[in-house]
Amino acid sequence: MSLSASDAIERCTALLEKVGVPYGNANATARAIVLSDVWGNASHGVMRLPFYLKRITMGGVNAGANLKTISERGAITSLDGEDGLGHWQLWEAANIGVQKAKEFGISLVSVKNSSHCGALGVYLYPALDAGQIALIFTNGPAVMPAVGGNAPLLSTSPIAAGIPAKPPMIIDLSTSAVARGKIAAAAKSGGTIPEGWAVDRQGKTITDAKEALMGMLAPLGGAKGFALGLMVESLSSGLSGGALSTEVPDMFNPDDDSKPQGISHTVITIDPSDLGDSASYADFNKLASQIKETGGRVPGAKRIHPNEAENHEITVAEAVIKDLNDWSNKLGLPNFS
Amino acid sequence: MSLSASDAIERCTALLEKVGVPYGNANATARAIVLSDVWGNASHGVMRLPFYLKRITMGGVNAGANLKTISERGAITSLDGEDGLGHWQLWEAANIGVQKAKEFGISLVSVKNSSHCGALGVYLYPALDAGQIALIFTNGPAVMPAVGGNAPLLSTSPIAAGIPAKPPMIIDLSTSAVARGKIAAAAKSGGTIPEGWAVDRQGKTITDAKEALMGMLAPLGGAKGFALGLMVESLSSGLSGGALSTEVPDMFNPDDDSKPQGISHTVITIDPSDLGDSASYADFNKLASQIKETGGRVPGAKRIHPNEAENHEITVAEAVIKDLNDWSNKLGLPNFS
Repeated sequence: MSLSASDAIERCTALLEKVGVPYGNANATARAIVLSDVWGNASHGVMRLPFYLKRITMGGVNAGANLKTISERGAITSLDGEDGLGHWQLWEAANIGVQKAKEFGISLVSVKNSSHCGALGVYLYPALDAGQIALIFTNGPAVMPAVGGNAPLLSTSPIAAGIPAKPPMIIDLSTSAVARGKIAAAAKSGGTIPEGWAVDRQGKTITDAKEALMGMLAPLGGAKGFALGLMVESLSSGLSGGALSTEVPDMFNPDDDSKPQGISHTVITIDPSDLGDSASYADFNKLASQIKETGGRVPGAKRIHPNEAENHEITVAEAVIKDLNDWSNKLGLPNFS
Repeated sequence: MSLSASDAIERCTALLEKVGVPYGNANATARAIVLSDVWGNASHGVMRLPFYLKRITMGGVNAGANLKTISERGAITSLDGEDGLGHWQLWEAANIGVQKAKEFGISLVSVKNSSHCGALGVYLYPALDAGQIALIFTNGPAVMPAVGGNAPLLSTSPIAAGIPAKPPMIIDLSTSAVARGKIAAAAKSGGTIPEGWAVDRQGKTITDAKEALMGMLAPLGGAKGFALGLMVESLSSGLSGGALSTEVPDMFNPDDDSKPQGISHTVITIDPSDLGDSASYADFNKLASQIKETGGRVPGAKRIHPNEAENHEITVAEAVIKDLNDWSNKLGLPNFS
């Protein structure tokens, strides 16, 4: 069904509040979740809310968590998420990054003991709105082996980068060859998948989609994707001293609903206006123009700004609406439809 | 022929001095060049020296360049390379990055108007020796189109990242699917190349190796590789306000020998000891152990440290020795053999 983003944000906020998340954090989380649907990225949108609610009620996510400062020195801020929701925590971390980048030119904010944060590109906007570059890294449950490795070591190891051209260029990708969702879709239709998407424990490529779902995600382009994933893991959990991906429970595994995920996020923010001349912004725009002039597509050119999301409609699968209504009934809130 | 690295460094230093490069800069450059050969990466080793010497004598590289400070604010340092050699300039930038990271926890050093710097992984060592993480980006002549684009926009857009595990993990890769050298090797043997290595101006994949040499390098995994390349370009020339890759002359094109390349380098350095606990280093080591335990290979585990390079032998192709001897004769220096 189709519903307005503003309505969806209000209802998601109310559900999160009912399970104990303070209004400000609930609303920031709801905005991040719904923005993903507005962007057409349903897999990180409201379909995830029932999982978050379940984890909160089962104890795997701490509804009343604070973002505690572990240390603050120079341009580096180290935070402990106290097992709270990843969305509002990473949004807040990104805003701290902007303030620190204004002060020092570049800053790093690290959050450990946090949870899944949805679509990583969301958290680029505080920097983009300030005319700054942001680079964001996060980890998650291990699904990707080393090249030739017999067990999963790394998460999909996503990287997001925002470049303040007009409109901004948004880079937001996993360093696995494809998302698990693509393999799941192929498995549903009983088909095969191309070589290089999934591997078994002997490191051999799997082309049967159903078998691939039991296997591991192959890194993007083999050794290069694994190396990039290793960089992401080192910059997120490695740097924060938080849980490595091999220790992160999967939010889709009901047996793990009471276990905190211990996910780490890292935001690096750069203020280009500190580089001594004003050429940077002109060059970002020139780069974007060159892409268009040669027939290419500028990444992120069609993304809706978080502030404009409320004016859009989102489409939510009936099965997801049913789950959300079950939660609404349980918590004494009106139904979605 | 085989020669000792210490001998090679001495001779390369002498050649660079003879064309006007001051001793310190000549020696730092020679060390970076020879280290690449020690690592078995001959394509960025002494085989490049004749090209550098030619560019210096033709005016494309400024032998007497300084690394001029454009601005220095907080944790950001912006430098102008005055068209000098990239090797000593990036080495110096990396060392400045280490000092600034000690002061601020994270730092960024940008160099514009520089030149080709050889193997990017070399410049991770000042940070690694200080127990710090370094991320390095550089640009170069455009060889890679946007996905679906009809003209080259980006360089091979390399990324280097050094993680201070024991031994350090070294990530050093281009965001193109493969290096042009691999295509050249296939062309020599008259063979074909796999789909996804090269594209023509209509964006179609090329499998004939000889045709591919006339084409453009495909980005790693298509859209993801292009997005990563765009991040590299934005963080190097975009950030420095220097020449975009479309404006960078190719060092292998003799017509461009008098034109400065205007290459940009950026070093981000992070001091993990500023993150409030000592878990980081333990986690870097644990990550490396996990890779080995599952049968994978730790990137960079076999790299020789720059300080130990002199104790090793390097192998240089006879054709390269001949070129170096021609230059030695011209400049009144003893031959290599």
